[in-house]
Amino acid sequence: MSPKNRLIYLPLGGAGEIGMNCYVFGYGPEGKERLIVVDLGVTFPDMDSAPGVDLIMPDISWAAENADRIEAIFITHAHEDHVGALGHLWPRLKAPVYARAFTAAIATLKMEEQGQPLDVIRVVKPRPEVVEAGPFKVQFVPVSHSIPESSALIIDTPAGRIVHTADFKLDGTPIVGEPFDPEEWHRIAREGAGVKVLTCDSTNVFSPLPGRSEATLAGPLSELIAVQEGMVVATTFASNVARLKTLAEAGRAAGRSVCLLGRAMKKMITAAVETGVLTDFPAIIPPEEAVEVPRGNLMLIVTGSQGERRAASAQLARGKYLGLEMKDGDTFLFSSKTIPGNERGVIRVMNAFSEMGVDVIDDRNGLYHVSGHANRPDLEAVHDLLAPKMLLPMHGEHRHLREHCRIGIAKGIAAELAINGTVVDLTGEEPEVVEYIEAGRTYLDGAVLIGAMDGVVRDRIRMALNGHVVATVILDEDEEPLGEAWVEIKGLSEKVKSGASLVERIEGELNEFLDTAGAKVLRNDDKMDEAIKRIVRQVSMEEVGKKPEVTVVTSRLVAE
Amino acid sequence: MSPKNRLIYLPLGGAGEIGMNCYVFGYGPEGKERLIVVDLGVTFPDMDSAPGVDLIMPDISWAAENADRIEAIFITHAHEDHVGALGHLWPRLKAPVYARAFTAAIATLKMEEQGQPLDVIRVVKPRPEVVEAGPFKVQFVPVSHSIPESSALIIDTPAGRIVHTADFKLDGTPIVGEPFDPEEWHRIAREGAGVKVLTCDSTNVFSPLPGRSEATLAGPLSELIAVQEGMVVATTFASNVARLKTLAEAGRAAGRSVCLLGRAMKKMITAAVETGVLTDFPAIIPPEEAVEVPRGNLMLIVTGSQGERRAASAQLARGKYLGLEMKDGDTFLFSSKTIPGNERGVIRVMNAFSEMGVDVIDDRNGLYHVSGHANRPDLEAVHDLLAPKMLLPMHGEHRHLREHCRIGIAKGIAAELAINGTVVDLTGEEPEVVEYIEAGRTYLDGAVLIGAMDGVVRDRIRMALNGHVVATVILDEDEEPLGEAWVEIKGLSEKVKSGASLVERIEGELNEFLDTAGAKVLRNDDKMDEAIKRIVRQVSMEEVGKKPEVTVVTSRLVAE
Repeated sequence: MSPKNRLIYLPLGGAGEIGMNCYVFGYGPEGKERLIVVDLGVTFPDMDSAPGVDLIMPDISWAAENADRIEAIFITHAHEDHVGALGHLWPRLKAPVYARAFTAAIATLKMEEQGQPLDVIRVVKPRPEVVEAGPFKVQFVPVSHSIPESSALIIDTPAGRIVHTADFKLDGTPIVGEPFDPEEWHRIAREGAGVKVLTCDSTNVFSPLPGRSEATLAGPLSELIAVQEGMVVATTFASNVARLKTLAEAGRAAGRSVCLLGRAMKKMITAAVETGVLTDFPAIIPPEEAVEVPRGNLMLIVTGSQGERRAASAQLARGKYLGLEMKDGDTFLFSSKTIPGNERGVIRVMNAFSEMGVDVIDDRNGLYHVSGHANRPDLEAVHDLLAPKMLLPMHGEHRHLREHCRIGIAKGIAAELAINGTVVDLTGEEPEVVEYIEAGRTYLDGAVLIGAMDGVVRDRIRMALNGHVVATVILDEDEEPLGEAWVEIKGLSEKVKSGASLVERIEGELNEFLDTAGAKVLRNDDKMDEAIKRIVRQVSMEEVGKKPEVTVVTSRLVAE
Repeated sequence: MSPKNRLIYLPLGGAGEIGMNCYVFGYGPEGKERLIVVDLGVTFPDMDSAPGVDLIMPDISWAAENADRIEAIFITHAHEDHVGALGHLWPRLKAPVYARAFTAAIATLKMEEQGQPLDVIRVVKPRPEVVEAGPFKVQFVPVSHSIPESSALIIDTPAGRIVHTADFKLDGTPIVGEPFDPEEWHRIAREGAGVKVLTCDSTNVFSPLPGRSEATLAGPLSELIAVQEGMVVATTFASNVARLKTLAEAGRAAGRSVCLLGRAMKKMITAAVETGVLTDFPAIIPPEEAVEVPRGNLMLIVTGSQGERRAASAQLARGKYLGLEMKDGDTFLFSSKTIPGNERGVIRVMNAFSEMGVDVIDDRNGLYHVSGHANRPDLEAVHDLLAPKMLLPMHGEHRHLREHCRIGIAKGIAAELAINGTVVDLTGEEPEVVEYIEAGRTYLDGAVLIGAMDGVVRDRIRMALNGHVVATVILDEDEEPLGEAWVEIKGLSEKVKSGASLVERIEGELNEFLDTAGAKVLRNDDKMDEAIKRIVRQVSMEEVGKKPEVTVVTSRLVAE
């Protein structure tokens, strides 16, 4: 190993938030490290901070500027927060994409949707198969999670071995996919010089009890479904193929025909069957057959566990969907947890069903859902099994990363809290922060990518909070007002405290201003703009108690 | 009792949601019933459904139209969702307002803030004092809740006795205020003909275990605070005077000086002291003294348990507040639960503190907070104690009311699910729905009250989701375009897929339209408006994938 080479770690997304995972590893001379990118995920916008935005992804400007140094992109699993940005961001990176078969199938759909080439996606078998990418030798290690074929990565470099867990849990009986194999993890720790660096999932670091297996759900779900009399409708994450199987089997065991609703669910099942992940899924019937089945013999498994407005659950909450509808005496089951921030949407769906007379069962008592992430004792078990020299917690908000660091430090592991944009040198005995690069968020807004700081979304939020006033003034060839000022309002109350109309009050004040303003002001666009905005805001504040956004349109007629 | 008289119940707010409580009771000939109003509360807006709105309150149009029939307004307790709308809505009802001393003190502040008369507020002592209001005889019955002097109401009418619980829990050791007294409730049930109707809190109907007493918190809170080394900052609801006392005592016991931060908290403590509710609150110091106290000897109790942006907790999360700031090694305690929908704000505060090195402790394990509402077994205990003939669940979302009805029906009580706007006749043996009146929401928006359906907020949401384009066209005396179309955008990306500017692309298309449009279109404002909107949306969709809101300003110059 040349003394000039260094090993670096740079999270671009997922370190400081749960979502939009993207991690860069580099090895080589400073500033010329060869790079690999692990995951290109999205996160979902909310009305509070990103109204109108379709998807949020990491700002990969740094990686894009150094695209010629990128050897490969690795996708650990097919969750949106790990693969969702691939089609959008790949054109700026243009490196080969490695993933296991099921993940590759979903990655291919992502590339296809954005019209990107499909032949850059390469299917990898799990360890011992090795992908050589510049100075990196990478192996996919099967881990249990809430989607098939999730993988940790072993990243071997001339400076030592990195284990990147990606999302994982310790599940000996995961229903679909490979069980957790402590022997294998122990072997990974004993090979060569052992594990130098562990970059580790932190999502559930605050959950104090050991995680529960997917297999624990079959009993309670079967018992619950067996005693229902009306139609049973269950929702879970579309990608949780193991859960879909458990639910469908419980439905079949209760003598029910099973029908899947929701595009995302069908995509996942199709990919799972086509890649051989899923071999024995119970027979399902299409919606057009389901409508003929007596309610007591029917079970629907639907998308929309987070109350998403366009998903099947919300459609059923509003009325008929593909000919099917919920009725008094039916049961709706959330086999899922509500992700913080999605409560309002979920509660809306629950109450809509309540109005229909549908019994809603959620996971209040933990019987019908288990998490896909390692809890605190599980994380500690992995620390102990792998015995890394360094720990870089990832996939978590700041508070999760901080807590995870503490656990590592208490065990004598050199842990470092590195949020998005932090370049960490892993060459020595301890992680060393060497640089901070610009790392923010990129928005997919309709069909274009915009920066979170471009001001577009800021303007939307301001219009939503304050309303928008458009004031139009026409000046003639002599810079004299032609006619009167014209005001249009949007998102503001027309009626005002004084009883008059807001538009008339603003127009009145603007006309008074135009009548008395000197030529100096009227000739100067900036001064006009400033004065008109001030008047609009002042009158609005007096009359309706709000300071609106203002657009001033000053048209100057020129002598022809 | 004249056979023509009837007893009615009409919820205007709080039945179908948690928040903005407002219930009407009436007695008399149909359509001429004399009325009382119980509570005038608010609910808080969110960005998803009511951006820019300051407060949400019930639409009391029906009550306002029948104001001459209203004998009195009763306020059960001083929570915002029971008294917050008083100052705003009283001018439309103009009836005397009855409340116990502490509640009356807060109600007075609400009236004062809106410039309403204060002498209409009348202080009532608890039962056996009786307020006569037309055909109603009303008594205030002390109940335990999370604010002092909460009261149920006994409403005696010629048609029988109603017990309206308002918000309550069963707490034998509530720290501040009167303990739950089962003997007294039993007496209430045995007086006269017993309880005809129970209108009952439903908030915690899904909580399966009996509620815990406020007194159970003193031990865990004291133990927690005693072992901290840095500054301790705790937050809870400002109105939870008992909790403030427990927290302050735990701080004092640990040798810490206690300082309260946040206007709402000071208001509540002042009202509690002035009305004699609070007699032995530990000594507190002002912020200017607190800055001089060593961190290890200081405790702050602050507002903002829900992550509200302007509250003291959020201010401290952003940096210095009144000279005080959080540092590495300090502890921040949420002695509160997060109300569903507020998760994002709370998590934001937690992560900001994590970045400062502050340890955040929340109520994950239920040690540091108890609810102020009756859980399912507590509700059942009250049903059993009062043995009402009818049950009208209130203060709950639809799903809570529905579940509460089920419990009542299982006990043989005639229960009816009546949401806001439902007129229920309580005269006979069972509740009978007789009418639905218009009952929606009124928004306080800046300084004016607007209807939820007025379109103002709808336009704001649309601008936030889609952006706003303003297109200006000037036509001369001959209806010919004068100059070119002028476009301004707000909340839309300027750069487009084709590489050009969005504004230029739209202006280009509009100018082409103006050049080719016939006089028939140019002369017709509606046709112009429609055509321009269509073009703007079409170009925007093509170029940025969004259909914006459009305001068209067509100025027609007239011959002078």
